[in-house]
Amino acid sequence: MSWLPTLKTATPEEGFELALKMSRMGVKYTQPDDAVRGKLRKVYENNADSLTQASQVVAINFQTVSAANNYWT
Amino acid sequence: MSWLPTLKTATPEEGFELALKMSRMGVKYTQPDDAVRGKLRKVYENNADSLTQASQVVAINFQTVSAANNYWT
Amino acid sequence: MSWLPTLKTATPEEGFELALKMSRMGVKYTQPDDAVRGKLRKVYENNADSLTQASQVVAINFQTVSAANNYWT
Amino acid sequence: MSWLPTLKTATPEEGFELALKMSRMGVKYTQPDDAVRGKLRKVYENNADSLTQASQVVAINFQTVSAANNYWT
Amino acid sequence: MSWLPTLKTATPEEGFELALKMSRMGVKYTQPDDAVRGKLRKVYENNADSLTQASQVVAINFQTVSAANNYWT
Amino acid sequence: MSWLPTLKTATPEEGFELALKMSRMGVKYTQPDDAVRGKLRKVYENNADSLTQASQVVAINFQTVSAANNYWT
Repeated sequence: MSWLPTLKTATPEEGFELALKMSRMGVKYTQPDDAVRGKLRKVYENNADSLTQASQVVAINFQTVSAANNYWT
Repeated sequence: MSWLPTLKTATPEEGFELALKMSRMGVKYTQPDDAVRGKLRKVYENNADSLTQASQVVAINFQTVSAANNYWT
Repeated sequence: MSWLPTLKTATPEEGFELALKMSRMGVKYTQPDDAVRGKLRKVYENNADSLTQASQVVAINFQTVSAANNYWT
Repeated sequence: MSWLPTLKTATPEEGFELALKMSRMGVKYTQPDDAVRGKLRKVYENNADSLTQASQVVAINFQTVSAANNYWT
Repeated sequence: MSWLPTLKTATPEEGFELALKMSRMGVKYTQPDDAVRGKLRKVYENNADSLTQASQVVAINFQTVSAANNYWT
Repeated sequence: MSWLPTLKTATPEEGFELALKMSRMGVKYTQPDDAVRGKLRKVYENNADSLTQASQVVAINFQTVSAANNYWT
């Protein structure tokens, strides 16, 4: 089953969570090793700038999801 | 209750504040621990580049909110 | 009175200045202390990369303002 | 044969993978040497911020691919 | 006279140069002192990452100018 | 003759190469000295984060080129 069968979601909040998933998948495609990603997570989740940067990627992906859902109008 | 029930706001200023909330939620999903985020806040709120970066995430999210509100025309 | 009553401006130049204001408000919401921001300003206004980064946030906000004004056509 | 004959894909997931390919090609055009890129890969795949940054480029390219596919409506 | 009377240009190349001007004005509004900017220029024009970052701001502003000109169709 | 007579290209791949050219011109306008750029190239083509950043600028410019070509539909 596809991890991204559609960009449509029922609500904006679910769309935001999809954007979060897309952001993580962008990382996972580059670093598929779960153990390595787990170790790196300890680093960036305690670094202010890393978290802001992560939030930025989510914001960019959420633009895409929002447009796909016609902003849930 | 959803933290993001809609992207619609009454005014541009409320839209800007929603964009701010979205930016913070992007961080919170990655680092859910309030105590850790509180500690990191002390770091980035006193760093010029961190603040500029935070403002950038707000700007990206505000693009989404503005489009959702048809720019409050 | 709202600091952002509308995204409409009479001219592109005024729109650019609104984008600048939005960029600064993105910082101010995160660091509301005028004295701290004043101190940090001394740092980033003398750093080339910080200034480029600031210009980037203005560019992103100006995209929003320009769309809201239908590019002043 | 072109590495980018079209921006159209059958599904969102394939579109995401195309965005990944575009992101890598953006690197390859600048650094065409496979051996050098292989060596650099060892560096960034073990660096949290590098991976977030890579995910951001994918997110930007995915905006383009998604628009080209009318969000797979 | 306004430094930005319009976003319209006759050609894409002139539009690119306008985007460059907008990027520089984004810096100038934050650091109005010509002598300081001149000194900083020596720094970033010899730094690869600074130049890439500068090119990125131009790219963002060029998106705006291109849309304003309907991509010079 | 203009280096950017049009944003139209025959294919997506040619559009990607135009985006690459635009990214480099964004650098060249800021640092016109070929010898300096050649020297800097040695630096960033061997740095993983620099290459990712370069790919990001191409991605942003490719958004513009793709829109100008109506995504080569």
